[in-house]
Amino acid sequence: MTTDLAAFLGPVPTLDEDAMRQARERLDQLTKPRGSLGRLEDLAVRLAGITGCPRPRLGNKTIVLMAADHGVVAEGVSAYPQTVTAQMVLNFLRGGAAINVLARQVGARVLVVDMGVAAELPDHPDLESRTIAPGTNNMAREPAMTPAQAQRAIAAGREIAAREIERGATLLATGDMGIGNTTPSSALAAVLLGRPVQAVTGRGAGLDDAGLRRKIDAIERALAVNQPQVNEPLDVLAKLGGFEIAGLVGVILGAGAARVPVVLDGLVSGAAALVACRLRPELRERLIASHRSVEPAHGLILEALGLRPLVDLQLRLGEGTGAALAMPLIESALAVLDEMATFKEAGVADRPDA
Amino acid sequence: MTTDLAAFLGPVPTLDEDAMRQARERLDQLTKPRGSLGRLEDLAVRLAGITGCPRPRLGNKTIVLMAADHGVVAEGVSAYPQTVTAQMVLNFLRGGAAINVLARQVGARVLVVDMGVAAELPDHPDLESRTIAPGTNNMAREPAMTPAQAQRAIAAGREIAAREIERGATLLATGDMGIGNTTPSSALAAVLLGRPVQAVTGRGAGLDDAGLRRKIDAIERALAVNQPQVNEPLDVLAKLGGFEIAGLVGVILGAGAARVPVVLDGLVSGAAALVACRLRPELRERLIASHRSVEPAHGLILEALGLRPLVDLQLRLGEGTGAALAMPLIESALAVLDEMATFKEAGVADRPDA
Repeated sequence: MTTDLAAFLGPVPTLDEDAMRQARERLDQLTKPRGSLGRLEDLAVRLAGITGCPRPRLGNKTIVLMAADHGVVAEGVSAYPQTVTAQMVLNFLRGGAAINVLARQVGARVLVVDMGVAAELPDHPDLESRTIAPGTNNMAREPAMTPAQAQRAIAAGREIAAREIERGATLLATGDMGIGNTTPSSALAAVLLGRPVQAVTGRGAGLDDAGLRRKIDAIERALAVNQPQVNEPLDVLAKLGGFEIAGLVGVILGAGAARVPVVLDGLVSGAAALVACRLRPELRERLIASHRSVEPAHGLILEALGLRPLVDLQLRLGEGTGAALAMPLIESALAVLDEMATFKEAGVADRPDA
Repeated sequence: MTTDLAAFLGPVPTLDEDAMRQARERLDQLTKPRGSLGRLEDLAVRLAGITGCPRPRLGNKTIVLMAADHGVVAEGVSAYPQTVTAQMVLNFLRGGAAINVLARQVGARVLVVDMGVAAELPDHPDLESRTIAPGTNNMAREPAMTPAQAQRAIAAGREIAAREIERGATLLATGDMGIGNTTPSSALAAVLLGRPVQAVTGRGAGLDDAGLRRKIDAIERALAVNQPQVNEPLDVLAKLGGFEIAGLVGVILGAGAARVPVVLDGLVSGAAALVACRLRPELRERLIASHRSVEPAHGLILEALGLRPLVDLQLRLGEGTGAALAMPLIESALAVLDEMATFKEAGVADRPDA
């Protein structure tokens, strides 16, 4: 990595081993058979390591929902027209979308960021404009972005993460909206995982067989035209990515630098996480996988990152919906660690051999 | 089934097909690709069918945590001494156990029911005494209960469910505490599923290899001594079950009769559900499986009942902990159904071919 790139990406602290040890020791003293809360205990220990606190609790939770349009929709790769991206942003601002409902349920804030929607959007307190351009170029014909655009999008995401954390967010989640954006996500997965396009391409929001063939074909052409270099994650991102994906790379970098856990949503967030971890492998253990999407690339990405999703509910919506659904599990893991009585406090006999 | 037994078990209404159809139609008009919330949508539709309401919402949630002791612990089948059952009940009443923490997180009430703990327990507003006897007999030597005891325990559970629903509970969850109670649960699974004892027996709260052999041996002897009749679920329950298991059978019957959904916890709740569904197969589709326990019998029971758990977090604690963890997912499914905007309301274009 060049010094410039390293400086651009910023620092990523390693997990706090001491906080993790203390958390594990406390869990083993609580009134339950050791390890009987399974993955909830592992999650609590990892959150202790991420935050550097042996008994962490969460306060404000912010879902950073990044929206952008994609030139590749000209190839007929989506079941929905491009105008739906902007329409859905308006739906987010009115509170009528799935992510609004789920965020209300779990007490999270939704911050919508326009990273490059191909439409005029209104001023609104929940909408931040960081437009790089009104949609990417068509990656099936040329690079989706310039390297400078990719870096600007990453920088925007990192700034937003830092600012939200500064304002009190203790957990960030990634969400996305962008008609056509499973196409660049699958393309990124194909290159970075070294998998055949067919193996990483799914039906997105509901493509029929002909649409799926068009999508695979568009990705194949994008790879042939752009010749992305697998060992240059920023090159791959610029040539194939979307503005919201690049922005989410920045969110992940920014949260990592600030020791704030990031909950990943589905495929599009996963593609951003994959790029981020290729840039900074230390980020991997700071990420929490919320769910495994129906999209085939998502499971492959999670596997490559060694992240096991908390739920598997056959979701394929995006917006941050899976991340929101996982938040109560994360908070419950920390509540167990913090609030349960120890054997000693409760006067309960531990197992004789313990 | 005899008329007497049918009367004792009470009615189980079938799912409301019309409410389910209305729920499905509404889900298909909401601003998301059809079916993109996967199993959350299926859950919302089933809850419409269970409750008979096309847009149901939950109010009060009650975890019925039944506790009892087991004569079979004399065979050395548990890693913990029997006194821990009563000690944990006191821990529940003081709010220091995992279930207390998780119930607080999700806003559920924990009602502890003494179905037969082998100790004096104090008066407490959260503890209800329905003691059948101070622990069951040792099933490895004789029937664990008399048929009359099993019926009394079921009747108690049914009464408690009916009363809690009368008082405003809109969702019941099953929880259990009883040192040694994975032994009767595995025995019930072996008989009712027709599986070898070895295939359905796990390490419970943490048995070592020798303990696991003792547990398998005790169950083998219980089957040989008692000769339970697989086609007589009440006979199987009386000979092998526990008071808390029989009580939970009653809770499931009572909630079913009142069209109130029941969230099942782990193996012990699963064994109760298996008995209940053998008595009344219509109950099956009224049950919500929260999680899949590490205990091998639990996965087999869920499979036999055709129930797919909402989470798989390698839990093996009981108490209702898995059920509590699943509650936010259930509430989120219903919030989506009830609160999301339709394509028409939001001015979002549906897919052109829809």
